[in-house]
Amino acid sequence: MIQDSTIEGWLAEDVGHHDVTNHVPGTTDGQLIAKEGGVTAGIDAATAVFEYLDCSVESTLEDGTAIDPGDVLLTVIGPTRDVLRGERPAVNVAAHASGIATKTRRAVDAAREVRDGVAIAGTRKTTPGLRGVEKRAVVAGGGDTHRLDLSHMAMVKDNHIAELGLEDAIEHVDKRASFATKVEVEVENPTDAPRAAGAGADIVLLDNMSPDDCERAVALLAENGHEDVLTEASGGITIDSVAEYATTGVNVISMGSLTHSADALDLSFRTGEGQN
Amino acid sequence: MIQDSTIEGWLAEDVGHHDVTNHVPGTTDGQLIAKEGGVTAGIDAATAVFEYLDCSVESTLEDGTAIDPGDVLLTVIGPTRDVLRGERPAVNVAAHASGIATKTRRAVDAAREVRDGVAIAGTRKTTPGLRGVEKRAVVAGGGDTHRLDLSHMAMVKDNHIAELGLEDAIEHVDKRASFATKVEVEVENPTDAPRAAGAGADIVLLDNMSPDDCERAVALLAENGHEDVLTEASGGITIDSVAEYATTGVNVISMGSLTHSADALDLSFRTGEGQN
Amino acid sequence: MIQDSTIEGWLAEDVGHHDVTNHVPGTTDGQLIAKEGGVTAGIDAATAVFEYLDCSVESTLEDGTAIDPGDVLLTVIGPTRDVLRGERPAVNVAAHASGIATKTRRAVDAAREVRDGVAIAGTRKTTPGLRGVEKRAVVAGGGDTHRLDLSHMAMVKDNHIAELGLEDAIEHVDKRASFATKVEVEVENPTDAPRAAGAGADIVLLDNMSPDDCERAVALLAENGHEDVLTEASGGITIDSVAEYATTGVNVISMGSLTHSADALDLSFRTGEGQN
Amino acid sequence: MIQDSTIEGWLAEDVGHHDVTNHVPGTTDGQLIAKEGGVTAGIDAATAVFEYLDCSVESTLEDGTAIDPGDVLLTVIGPTRDVLRGERPAVNVAAHASGIATKTRRAVDAAREVRDGVAIAGTRKTTPGLRGVEKRAVVAGGGDTHRLDLSHMAMVKDNHIAELGLEDAIEHVDKRASFATKVEVEVENPTDAPRAAGAGADIVLLDNMSPDDCERAVALLAENGHEDVLTEASGGITIDSVAEYATTGVNVISMGSLTHSADALDLSFRTGEGQN
Amino acid sequence: MIQDSTIEGWLAEDVGHHDVTNHVPGTTDGQLIAKEGGVTAGIDAATAVFEYLDCSVESTLEDGTAIDPGDVLLTVIGPTRDVLRGERPAVNVAAHASGIATKTRRAVDAAREVRDGVAIAGTRKTTPGLRGVEKRAVVAGGGDTHRLDLSHMAMVKDNHIAELGLEDAIEHVDKRASFATKVEVEVENPTDAPRAAGAGADIVLLDNMSPDDCERAVALLAENGHEDVLTEASGGITIDSVAEYATTGVNVISMGSLTHSADALDLSFRTGEGQN
Amino acid sequence: MIQDSTIEGWLAEDVGHHDVTNHVPGTTDGQLIAKEGGVTAGIDAATAVFEYLDCSVESTLEDGTAIDPGDVLLTVIGPTRDVLRGERPAVNVAAHASGIATKTRRAVDAAREVRDGVAIAGTRKTTPGLRGVEKRAVVAGGGDTHRLDLSHMAMVKDNHIAELGLEDAIEHVDKRASFATKVEVEVENPTDAPRAAGAGADIVLLDNMSPDDCERAVALLAENGHEDVLTEASGGITIDSVAEYATTGVNVISMGSLTHSADALDLSFRTGEGQN
Repeated sequence: MIQDSTIEGWLAEDVGHHDVTNHVPGTTDGQLIAKEGGVTAGIDAATAVFEYLDCSVESTLEDGTAIDPGDVLLTVIGPTRDVLRGERPAVNVAAHASGIATKTRRAVDAAREVRDGVAIAGTRKTTPGLRGVEKRAVVAGGGDTHRLDLSHMAMVKDNHIAELGLEDAIEHVDKRASFATKVEVEVENPTDAPRAAGAGADIVLLDNMSPDDCERAVALLAENGHEDVLTEASGGITIDSVAEYATTGVNVISMGSLTHSADALDLSFRTGEGQN
Repeated sequence: MIQDSTIEGWLAEDVGHHDVTNHVPGTTDGQLIAKEGGVTAGIDAATAVFEYLDCSVESTLEDGTAIDPGDVLLTVIGPTRDVLRGERPAVNVAAHASGIATKTRRAVDAAREVRDGVAIAGTRKTTPGLRGVEKRAVVAGGGDTHRLDLSHMAMVKDNHIAELGLEDAIEHVDKRASFATKVEVEVENPTDAPRAAGAGADIVLLDNMSPDDCERAVALLAENGHEDVLTEASGGITIDSVAEYATTGVNVISMGSLTHSADALDLSFRTGEGQN
Repeated sequence: MIQDSTIEGWLAEDVGHHDVTNHVPGTTDGQLIAKEGGVTAGIDAATAVFEYLDCSVESTLEDGTAIDPGDVLLTVIGPTRDVLRGERPAVNVAAHASGIATKTRRAVDAAREVRDGVAIAGTRKTTPGLRGVEKRAVVAGGGDTHRLDLSHMAMVKDNHIAELGLEDAIEHVDKRASFATKVEVEVENPTDAPRAAGAGADIVLLDNMSPDDCERAVALLAENGHEDVLTEASGGITIDSVAEYATTGVNVISMGSLTHSADALDLSFRTGEGQN
Repeated sequence: MIQDSTIEGWLAEDVGHHDVTNHVPGTTDGQLIAKEGGVTAGIDAATAVFEYLDCSVESTLEDGTAIDPGDVLLTVIGPTRDVLRGERPAVNVAAHASGIATKTRRAVDAAREVRDGVAIAGTRKTTPGLRGVEKRAVVAGGGDTHRLDLSHMAMVKDNHIAELGLEDAIEHVDKRASFATKVEVEVENPTDAPRAAGAGADIVLLDNMSPDDCERAVALLAENGHEDVLTEASGGITIDSVAEYATTGVNVISMGSLTHSADALDLSFRTGEGQN
Repeated sequence: MIQDSTIEGWLAEDVGHHDVTNHVPGTTDGQLIAKEGGVTAGIDAATAVFEYLDCSVESTLEDGTAIDPGDVLLTVIGPTRDVLRGERPAVNVAAHASGIATKTRRAVDAAREVRDGVAIAGTRKTTPGLRGVEKRAVVAGGGDTHRLDLSHMAMVKDNHIAELGLEDAIEHVDKRASFATKVEVEVENPTDAPRAAGAGADIVLLDNMSPDDCERAVALLAENGHEDVLTEASGGITIDSVAEYATTGVNVISMGSLTHSADALDLSFRTGEGQN
Repeated sequence: MIQDSTIEGWLAEDVGHHDVTNHVPGTTDGQLIAKEGGVTAGIDAATAVFEYLDCSVESTLEDGTAIDPGDVLLTVIGPTRDVLRGERPAVNVAAHASGIATKTRRAVDAAREVRDGVAIAGTRKTTPGLRGVEKRAVVAGGGDTHRLDLSHMAMVKDNHIAELGLEDAIEHVDKRASFATKVEVEVENPTDAPRAAGAGADIVLLDNMSPDDCERAVALLAENGHEDVLTEASGGITIDSVAEYATTGVNVISMGSLTHSADALDLSFRTGEGQN
């Protein structure tokens, strides 16, 4: 859900105090159109932009749809000046979100080709102000949101462990975490994985490990009767290396680049009078 | 200038209602550090995040500095819980902005190698909510902001021209534009460039033209005594093609990809107790 | 974390446009004092009110402290007009939150007397605008936040089940939920508890069941090898009935009344010149 | 009037970034229903929640109506996902406000049984963020708002009097107060009541006095020709003691507990597919 | 009290996304100085602008001071870029408010020369967004705020009376108004003044009456034993006619022009390096 | 474009927490009517107030229309309570803006009588919070907005020049300004005008010069081949002196008083039941 106050800010930063080219009478329709293939996302946000301006919008595609050049994502009808005013922020947000969905889909496809069922997840490395939009774009691309914010899942990190020791750090957080909250524990080497699981971790984060080490951590967990504990590989994994990590047997592969380094998908907006 | 309410939103979306891992006593320092080379930007925004949390910040580098891995962008001291709370949004915004600056610098270098003085400009294709941050990042990379919003410079676009004809469309906008505002006119072919200049354009936008057509437009303007009218090439220009456009003699080359498709620069945050 | 804009709203609604009694020169100190025994909460929020007004605050007690009449929760020093301006909102929020913590502590004590380790949890029945403050107050009282918002934990509710059937409804949600998110399933009778667990529920919500039925559900789960699946009793449970539910062996007892029907704790504010 | 930005905050704190159970197609209706008897309030706020989500709402009852279990307060029709999204905040605010109205009605009834015409008033001890909602709930219960904020009525308090003396403190405030503003003076003993009235008080606040002292203050005012000056009893008055204060002849009895310690009224929400 | 979010908006609308002239190093001081004589107001708002920017401010004069050209209203020290950034909004608000205070003082002087004790009041005709600033500026000029908003004092207006009749309209409002709220009744002719007073009006508004009619209304009230009921003359009264209305014996003369048509007082800002 | 959050603030500051006179059933229409002649502006803002309240509005006149007493600016239909609630803020903003438009038209007429084509411009001396509304009101009156904010046009001011010297100060700013941005240079005497033009100024600001000096500056520019460089006269120019400045040949005359010292235009609002 995009808040109206957020939309308001997107429009205000693009319009300024006095746009002399917007004194246009009449009504027009417009279409958000793909200029390259990919996966859609952010259609709800683009819709919200036009609805804030009291235009009538019909989303012709859902988030998460594979599209080809020429496909129409949404159609809008309204006063020409409002359609034109909404165009740029609407295209910008949809192109940005669809770029993330498209990159995620590529990572998911690369990983799943190797091993079915592995999850590709985003991280907290999102663009400030767009946490929700970007997390939902990862989902649109077939990925997993990972934790949405610091309160969603409790993470026992290296600095906690450095201070208290592995078991005590986990106990410290476990005691404070709600029954509704999972606890994930970051480990730096395969040997610590079963220790973390034994101390109560729901998920073990294999931080910056090589594929070999990941594989070993997965094996050690199984040997110690922790098959039900999830594993996540994280740290510098790219589209190129994701398949290799998928073979290791980890449950989740997280990639910050899904959100912080995805090229926008090329979308454009065409009004009744032509494209602008 | 980043508004406090913007910072507030960045922090709130990352924290949520109850972070059980943040009950940390004491004071710590932290450093924002480069993990790869590039150009800095967004240091003011990262600083503002920590200052909102009443931490003490020293920016050790200015926006626009070429950096190497290991360089420290800023140093912060404050209550551990606040330093940790600010870390993620601060890193995210600086990494995003520095990625834009770095990509811009690359485009500027590619173009200037061919012809000195050509300007590389951003567009309005910015991430919603970050117009100011991204425009200033383009500047940090040696680029030109282009118009900041619709009210900054008046653009006579293809749909105005389709409706009124070139000269009338320009006159229509010129009459409404302040003396403080430049007027740029979008043309689809070289022949229209001198017509636009003759009708009062301060800048002629050569939209989606090939390098050859750009060169011809520049020549036609000179032939018709419009050397003082600026030219801008725009439309699908990439790092790979920017040099070719630079040779055409246009004054400005604008690239939407500077802001909508720049990979984040790899930055990390190191606290007194290690890196997290 | 209380946002500045929230504090701003609390102050504005209490001051109005022109308070003629606030033209007071000089500096004063003030103390937030307990007038009855209970458990503290909301001290961070009260602190934030005075800090917004640039007063200097020292929190002498932490949230979650058992207090007696006369105990001082925080001490503030600042311009008299600002101390007086902050007084009412600061007292109101701390008294409200401490009332919740006190009621929670009472429920926890009643339940734990009967069976150690049972958790007392809040619900989403919080006062609009105060979700975070009230959830943290439940924690201060020794309770569990339960899910903080709809995105924190996924709940399969009666209407999902009515539409799709128990197993399909769980699968439907499970497929969409992140690996970071627990899934809780609401069941209406003891027999459905092992079915829900078998279909993948992390937690089974025993909705509006009698203590006997709760006990039976717990037994059925154990008989079917689901000892690791958590159980939550919910629906109209009061301070009077909480002990009886605790005996049933459920892991969690949730009570909406902790937040929606807790009397404020009696706190007052005393300035240097006397109490007002 | 509830502001849209307030509603936006209520919804955002309950939804979070990604609710996986809300992907529900279709349209539904829903009803806000009483599960226990009481007095309605907050129906405008609940309505505003659904209207923000562009649902269609019909309020079937007005604020201030005495209701029985099963009575329908409002009916809403809209997209299922929006009706479900609005449900919790809408129920929460209406249950909270109706709880205040119900408690107020009980206090009013207890007092009026003894003496007709006595007013039962709220105080500034309201839940932060809900001043308007709670004041209007007091009115719905038959009570009096008392001053809405510090600018509404000027109060001469004990600390002013301690500093300047009674008469000078009143004169000091009177000179600064608008002709549109009443001035109320807080006194600590019956003897000061006629002094305050003589010095210009519109209302005399009998602070923390026993019923006997209140009665004496009323008598002293009458003896000194100040029958037209209103009297207010305040300080720790409860539902149990309110009748005794009503007999004393004071015009107004104010009770902070009306707003800070009222149990929520039990309301629920039923959608077309059943209740959730 | 000016809210931070308000100051934020004032600054943002003046700065825009990228001010290339503000890259100024170093620290400076600045002074807000009168260029013409008048009465000060808005100094708190100007102070708040600079404090938002973390500059250090000393207000050398209080609101309501009669000043001569060259007098210094406040002194600020801070980073040059922040002092320059705050300058324009700070001067604008202080000049606007001081203009209102100065005009009010002129009206007060004109009226008081004729009859001591008559109050000059503002109205609700204030500039949107500046209700509090302008009301306090009226006070700074020696005027009376009149009601601050619709909830401050209840007004029985011509349309209520047209619908219900004078007495019933008053009773209708009286029953709904708090004991803390005064009730003012608008009448169209002198004869209705004692009727309104008899029906419970605290204040009678003599709407658009000539001075003669005002005088007659005052006399009729006295004849009918309503000397204690206040009278207000309103409607098109100017600096030129205010003295004539003062002679009529009304208690209050209200003038919308105090706030909606006051010329700004000429103030300027001088920094260490000269004036700009 | 007026933001919803701005309208929300205008309404909230006028209503307060509980307006007892607004419990009015039924539907009504209302009209915004001129009570004196002038030029309309702010109709969009007044419309936005009523639309925020979900009333139906028809603007019968456009901004910039010359009107006579009795002319109807807009017509609104909606629930009586909402029409009455919107009335005061709507009238206030339209009266304020129309006052600015009317004063601007007067200045334009005075100047154009003497010399056609001279532009009358506003300044940054606008009422805080209303930059956009007031700039558009200047346009409605036939004036020029001048720069909308600090980022719109770059101004080289006396303090820059004092520090760096004229040519270097211009170069310093020119290098930082976008190709999309004009650069205006402030000069203190006629001789500096051609120097500024020669150094790259797009516009020369003749600051606080007499008409004679302005005329000389214009002549010097022409003599030095800078006919294409615009000139602006600024500093204490009034309706009385504007014609004299118009004769000097400057292109633009800017007047702060257009926005900071314009009397409101007398507008009123008439509902179906009469005028209030």
